[in-house]
Amino acid sequence: MKIAFIGSGNVATNIAFALKAAGHQMVQVFNHRLQGALELAEQLGCEATATLSELTHQADCYIISVKDDVIEALAGQLQLNDKLVVHTAGSVSMEVLQKASNYYGVLYPLQTFSKQRLLDFSTIPFFVEASDDESLATIEQLAKSISNAVTRTNFEQRKMLHLSAVFACNFVNHLYDLSEGLLKEHNLSFEALKPLILETALKVQSVNPHDGQTGPARRNDQEVMTKHLQLLSNNQSLQYIYQLLSDSIVKSFHK
Amino acid sequence: MKIAFIGSGNVATNIAFALKAAGHQMVQVFNHRLQGALELAEQLGCEATATLSELTHQADCYIISVKDDVIEALAGQLQLNDKLVVHTAGSVSMEVLQKASNYYGVLYPLQTFSKQRLLDFSTIPFFVEASDDESLATIEQLAKSISNAVTRTNFEQRKMLHLSAVFACNFVNHLYDLSEGLLKEHNLSFEALKPLILETALKVQSVNPHDGQTGPARRNDQEVMTKHLQLLSNNQSLQYIYQLLSDSIVKSFHK
Repeated sequence: MKIAFIGSGNVATNIAFALKAAGHQMVQVFNHRLQGALELAEQLGCEATATLSELTHQADCYIISVKDDVIEALAGQLQLNDKLVVHTAGSVSMEVLQKASNYYGVLYPLQTFSKQRLLDFSTIPFFVEASDDESLATIEQLAKSISNAVTRTNFEQRKMLHLSAVFACNFVNHLYDLSEGLLKEHNLSFEALKPLILETALKVQSVNPHDGQTGPARRNDQEVMTKHLQLLSNNQSLQYIYQLLSDSIVKSFHK
Repeated sequence: MKIAFIGSGNVATNIAFALKAAGHQMVQVFNHRLQGALELAEQLGCEATATLSELTHQADCYIISVKDDVIEALAGQLQLNDKLVVHTAGSVSMEVLQKASNYYGVLYPLQTFSKQRLLDFSTIPFFVEASDDESLATIEQLAKSISNAVTRTNFEQRKMLHLSAVFACNFVNHLYDLSEGLLKEHNLSFEALKPLILETALKVQSVNPHDGQTGPARRNDQEVMTKHLQLLSNNQSLQYIYQLLSDSIVKSFHK
């Protein structure tokens, strides 16, 4: 398929490279900052533009990968009539694309992306939705050309997938960040935690997280938890987080 | 070295296999439940006992790997005089071993262990302490026979390492558990999150967690966060956790 990208951030960059590797033709990259569009377009070997009126008419599919809160406004400026338009967001309905085209849908990858890390797409779960059966079949086919884990979904399920990903990725990463801060305060290196972090994520690939839970709260070891809260006495915010997550673990095992 | 294990749980099992593979001689496994001692001893090809008075005198080093809150009481029942005695705990001082021997110390691996997963020890960080220079050299040598990441430490640092591991492992795993619960409630499979969980842990091996933070709170996207809290309206406990961790992320980037 001939593809145009609207947006050139982490998600767009990763999907664009995967689609190109799968044999699709990248036609154009739009970004309101020309420099961003140029960077990705150059790597893909296609045109770049920062002007919506210059958007190509040659693509079969337009992939909108911009911040959630600007998708609707951007779609309102597009007049793509009968071209297929999709977005890649977890928490935005597909109907916001109605203004842009009669054929629209969602191509939602459940993964965290960064430009520096181009991922193997074969195992990345994609969730697809569309305005009509034909568009759905096309989006599904596009997703299956890069991933072995494509599932038809609906907006209610997609919202829950996105919310669960906030817990399992964004909040998890913040805990990594907080633990690094704790170590730095005591002149200790975050390096020491890296094997533990990796093993915790590896273990849950084969062991149910509830069964694999360890630590003082799992054992309801009040003595250690009290000592930990004392160690955090100069950081009320970390104390709250420690207390709340420990209570939640204790509750899930001991009540 | 000739080694005796007091305890036969996840930590003891993993360390015992690593030491045996490194050429050390396992002499005996003690557990107050004989079945537990037998299971590990059989795999190691050594004696098992559930009676402290039958504890071997033939070992050079006794490794105590039992729950934190029983180490001191157990050490009080041992009379190992001039034998080296160590424990493997993150939050227990080495002085609780004074009653057991004149030579004691700590061999603390910063990792999460389960009997089902025997890990590669070469990259596991070990933190060592001892009552005296000679014991320290011996414990360090023992640790270096299985790991390339051995560091001398003190109790203050070890406590902070253990506390940071609670954030980066135990709390992280609980977030995995909560996200699985969320998905299950909506007939969605935890399988969908596994690539995301792995990538989040892999990314932080090379990208600082603060720099790698993504998600609605990172962007201070109040609209998405409000929608997420509404999705959790039937689960006050998850709402609190969502709110507290989101506030913490927003604070660390936007204040």
